[in-house]
Amino acid sequence: MDKDEILRIVSKLFKEKGFYNTSISEISEKVGLKGGSLYYHIKSKEDVLFSICEHAINGLLSKLETIVNTDAAPDVKLKKIIENHVDYFTKNLYETSVFLIETKALRDKYQKSYKSKRDQFELHVRNVLQEGMKKGVFRRADVKLLSFAILGALNWMVIWYNPEGEWGADKIRKEFTKLIFSGIEKR
Amino acid sequence: MDKDEILRIVSKLFKEKGFYNTSISEISEKVGLKGGSLYYHIKSKEDVLFSICEHAINGLLSKLETIVNTDAAPDVKLKKIIENHVDYFTKNLYETSVFLIETKALRDKYQKSYKSKRDQFELHVRNVLQEGMKKGVFRRADVKLLSFAILGALNWMVIWYNPEGEWGADKIRKEFTKLIFSGIEKR
Repeated sequence: MDKDEILRIVSKLFKEKGFYNTSISEISEKVGLKGGSLYYHIKSKEDVLFSICEHAINGLLSKLETIVNTDAAPDVKLKKIIENHVDYFTKNLYETSVFLIETKALRDKYQKSYKSKRDQFELHVRNVLQEGMKKGVFRRADVKLLSFAILGALNWMVIWYNPEGEWGADKIRKEFTKLIFSGIEKR
Repeated sequence: MDKDEILRIVSKLFKEKGFYNTSISEISEKVGLKGGSLYYHIKSKEDVLFSICEHAINGLLSKLETIVNTDAAPDVKLKKIIENHVDYFTKNLYETSVFLIETKALRDKYQKSYKSKRDQFELHVRNVLQEGMKKGVFRRADVKLLSFAILGALNWMVIWYNPEGEWGADKIRKEFTKLIFSGIEKR
């Protein structure tokens, strides 16, 4: 078993039971390692929590940066950002859930690293919105509030998304893109 | 100090530090009560967590039911639902945050009561969306996914809303209503 697999198993435990309700002995049991072999991969619960958060935010951020660092029009970029978010969340549900919901358990220096990446992420999204408003493809609005509304709609997936549920990533992407771009009013 | 005030103080602690990182002695200190006087109001940390969640969901749900039980048109109802949500969240930030983020710490029977009310809430919202689609004021879409997107955008306020921040409830209401109804595209 490699580190990624271990992180995924622990993420699932953290998402389902919460960080504090998951014991090292449960981790040991699910991962199938104990004593020194477990310690080789996991120094402490907090250590693995931090690894999960880092892994999730780094993956999401690097994909976002690939999108924003192109010459595409802002509406094309935003569509790709939404698609990327939905895809990443459906493929990495446990990790993203832990990184959005369980970070309060991290100590200050870990919080700092995590928050600076989250801020970077939000800034990229805001720049795309800003650019779209300047170019007249998006209507004028408070950029920060708009980014919170869009990211909120997307991030809330960690609460309701069920990998065995009724919708695949395709359907979610389509409906969310439509809502964000065109709203719900019939015209 | 009455029960509501105590719940508010404890909610603030839970929101800022998380349920597990808040100790009974911190609660005692902030509330200004100890021993028997504290125990009179708070039997256990879990007991107060449950009271906070119940209080928050009951308040939000009863306001929602007042809105949906009128003869107003579905778009008018949805506008009011959004306004109510923003108002309730800005006025009861700590309680709503705890009730959305910290419920994993509740035992099964408490979870059950909480989840059934949350489901009721979502059902009311879906009925309004459904009615709007039937009457042709909202475009056709997957009602459940749409309700998750709308409630996600609103619920995410518990993560970013700052009572001392740059926007009041008025501004947030306006921007969120506009986004949900008309989307971001300029026409």
